[in-house]
Amino acid sequence: MKAPYLLTPGPLTTSDSVKEKMLRDWGSRDSAFIAMNSEMRERLVALANARGTHVCVPVQGSGTFAIEATIGTLLPRDGKLLVLVNGAYGTRMVKITSTMGRSVEALEWREDQPVDPKAVQARLSEDGDITHVAVVHCETTSGILNPVQAVAEVVQAHGRALIIDAMSAFGALRVDATALPFTAVVASSNKCLQGVPGMGFALIRQDVLEQCKGNAHSLSLDLFDQWEGFEKNGQWRFTPPTHVIAAFLQALDEHAAEGGVEGRGARYARNHEVLVDGMEALGFRCLLAREHQAPIIVTFHMPADPNFKFVDFYDRLSAKGFLIYPGKLTVADSFRIGCIGDLGEAEMRAALDAIASVLEEMGVHDGAPAPTA
Amino acid sequence: MKAPYLLTPGPLTTSDSVKEKMLRDWGSRDSAFIAMNSEMRERLVALANARGTHVCVPVQGSGTFAIEATIGTLLPRDGKLLVLVNGAYGTRMVKITSTMGRSVEALEWREDQPVDPKAVQARLSEDGDITHVAVVHCETTSGILNPVQAVAEVVQAHGRALIIDAMSAFGALRVDATALPFTAVVASSNKCLQGVPGMGFALIRQDVLEQCKGNAHSLSLDLFDQWEGFEKNGQWRFTPPTHVIAAFLQALDEHAAEGGVEGRGARYARNHEVLVDGMEALGFRCLLAREHQAPIIVTFHMPADPNFKFVDFYDRLSAKGFLIYPGKLTVADSFRIGCIGDLGEAEMRAALDAIASVLEEMGVHDGAPAPTA
Repeated sequence: MKAPYLLTPGPLTTSDSVKEKMLRDWGSRDSAFIAMNSEMRERLVALANARGTHVCVPVQGSGTFAIEATIGTLLPRDGKLLVLVNGAYGTRMVKITSTMGRSVEALEWREDQPVDPKAVQARLSEDGDITHVAVVHCETTSGILNPVQAVAEVVQAHGRALIIDAMSAFGALRVDATALPFTAVVASSNKCLQGVPGMGFALIRQDVLEQCKGNAHSLSLDLFDQWEGFEKNGQWRFTPPTHVIAAFLQALDEHAAEGGVEGRGARYARNHEVLVDGMEALGFRCLLAREHQAPIIVTFHMPADPNFKFVDFYDRLSAKGFLIYPGKLTVADSFRIGCIGDLGEAEMRAALDAIASVLEEMGVHDGAPAPTA
Repeated sequence: MKAPYLLTPGPLTTSDSVKEKMLRDWGSRDSAFIAMNSEMRERLVALANARGTHVCVPVQGSGTFAIEATIGTLLPRDGKLLVLVNGAYGTRMVKITSTMGRSVEALEWREDQPVDPKAVQARLSEDGDITHVAVVHCETTSGILNPVQAVAEVVQAHGRALIIDAMSAFGALRVDATALPFTAVVASSNKCLQGVPGMGFALIRQDVLEQCKGNAHSLSLDLFDQWEGFEKNGQWRFTPPTHVIAAFLQALDEHAAEGGVEGRGARYARNHEVLVDGMEALGFRCLLAREHQAPIIVTFHMPADPNFKFVDFYDRLSAKGFLIYPGKLTVADSFRIGCIGDLGEAEMRAALDAIASVLEEMGVHDGAPAPTA
C-alpha cells in the first residue's frame, strides 16, 4: 500500500531518495561517518550565513530535546529566561525551564496574534534580572509567524541573549546571522529541511558557548560537552542516529538543489496559497489573518455544519491517501493542514480534491464556521 | 560500494529487511503508527517476561539518554544511587547522576573483574541512605558479564531498588522479571535486538513508576510524563523517530523468528567462540578470563610486535570490509572486536581471514602481547 501524503507539521513526507540513504549501516566512530558529521555541521552553519560566528551542535532526539539542551546549556543556573508565548511551543519552553529548576517568565499573547516587540522592550526595561529571551519563529500551534527580526533587535539593544525556536521555519524562512542578531537558533532534521526525525541541532554563537561549561542540568543534553566532543574528534559523545544523519545529508543536498531557503520557501508559499485558496472556495475560514500566517501549516476553524465530524473527516481523508494533523493545539475549535514536505502544487490540488469529495460523502455543503468563530 | 560489516558494540550491522522498513514515512499521530507503538511496547515487556509487573517506556535518543531518563525519573531528589563500576558505562552513570545534582556513590572494581555481590551487600548494610543501586549487565568497556542475578538478590534483600543497564545484553542474554528482581531494565534499539539507532527504552515496575511524578530533572527525559502520554493516547509526547521504530518492529520480528533470546544468544555465543578461537590461533590474547566474558564484544591485548600499528590494522581491515571499534575504553592497552549484529559464523570466519591477511601485509607474525600484559 502506498504511504499517504503527510499534510502535517512533521514528521512529513520525505523524498524516496532521502529514505534510500537509510539502506546502509555506518560505523558511528569510523572516519567515513566522522566526515559526514563534519559536513552536516558545516552546511547547517552555512545555511544561516553564520560561518565564523556560530557553531552547529547537533543532538539526538526530537526538536524538544534540542530546545531543552539549548536552554539548559546557555541559561546560567542563576539566569532568568523570558519566553514570548503565543502557542503551545512557547508554553513548552516555559515548562522545560521550570522543570530544570531555573527562573522563567512567560510574556503572553493570544494564539492568533504575533508577539509584540514593544511589549518585549517594556519588559526588558523593567526587569534587569532577565538574561535570556526565547521566541518561536513559526508557532506551529496556529501556524503564526512571529516578528523575529524586530524581537532580535530589541533583545540586542538591551544586551540580552536570544534563543530562537526555528523548528518549523529553518530551511524555508530566511535566518541570516549577519542580519538577525541571535545567540542560538534551534531546529530539527524533520521539518522544512525534509529529513527524517531523530535529530535536532542548535546554531550557537561560539564566543557564548565557550562560556557555558557546567551550566547544563543533564549530561545527555549538555551542548557544551557535545560541542567539545565534536571539536576533539569529530564524533558524537553518545550513539548517534546514523541512518537519520545519512538521510539528512541527502536532504541537505536536495534542499540546495531546490535553490536553498529561497527555493524551498517559494514552493511552500505556493503550496500554502493553493491550499488556502482551495479551502476558502469550499467555505473554510482560516484562524489567522493572512499577514500573520507562515507558509508552513494552516489552522482552519471547525465548520459549523452538523454533518461535519472531524474524526470522520480525518479517517476519510486518510483512506484517500492524505493524513492531516489529527488533533488541535489551539484554544479555538479548529484543525490544521500542513503545506511542507516533499509535496508540490499537484499534491496540494489532489488533497483539495480529496477534501471536496469527503465533504460530499459526509453531506457537508459548506466548510464555514459558526458566525461567532 | 558494499557497506562494511560492523564488528563493533553497536550501531551494528542490521539486516536489509530491517532497513527497508525505513522506506516509508509515518504520521506520528496517526492510528496506524499508534498501533505500532503499542505493539512495540508490549513485545518488549513480553521479552523480559514482565507482563503485569513492568511497563515499557521508550525514549528518543541513544541508550545514554534512556539511562539518564531512568535514573532521573526513578531516583527521588533526596535519594542516593550506588553505582557498581567496572568500566566506562558504570562511570557514565555516576557522571549522569552527579550532573543532575543528586547523591551518588561509586563502588569500583578493576575493569577485568566482575562486580562482587558481597561488597554490594556490605555497602548496603553500612549505608541506609542508599535508595537505588545501578549495575551494568554486560560492561561494553571490556565485554565483561556482571552477575546481575546475585546483585539483584542482594539489592532486593536490602529493600532497595535496582536499575540494570542491559544495553549490550538485552535480547541476547536472558532477563526474566519473574526470576530476576529489578525495578528497571534499560536497553536500546540498536544492540542485540538489531534495530537501527535512535531510541532507547526502559522496562519499569509499574507500581514504582506510578510514584515517580515530579522526580525528573528534565522534561524531555521524564519517563513518568512519557509513560502517562502513552497511557493517555498511545502517542509519544514529542516527535518520535518514526522510521527507526518501523525498523525496530521488523527487528523484533526477526528476533522472534530466530528463536528469541535463546536463538539470538546462541548465535552470538557461536560467533564469540569462533572469534576467540581464531584470534588465539593468531597469537592474540583476551583481556578477560573466559568465564567472565559475555558473548557480545571481546577485548584483545595489543600485540607486542613492533610492526603492529593499530591505526594501520584498523584501516586495512576496513578496506577489506570489516570495521572494528576504532578506540579503546579500557585502561589496558587493547582493542575490541564485536560479535553481535546480523552476522554469523561465516562472517566471523571471513573477518578472521581478513585479520590474518592484514597481519601478513603488516609483517606481524604473532598477535601475542608483551609478557607483562
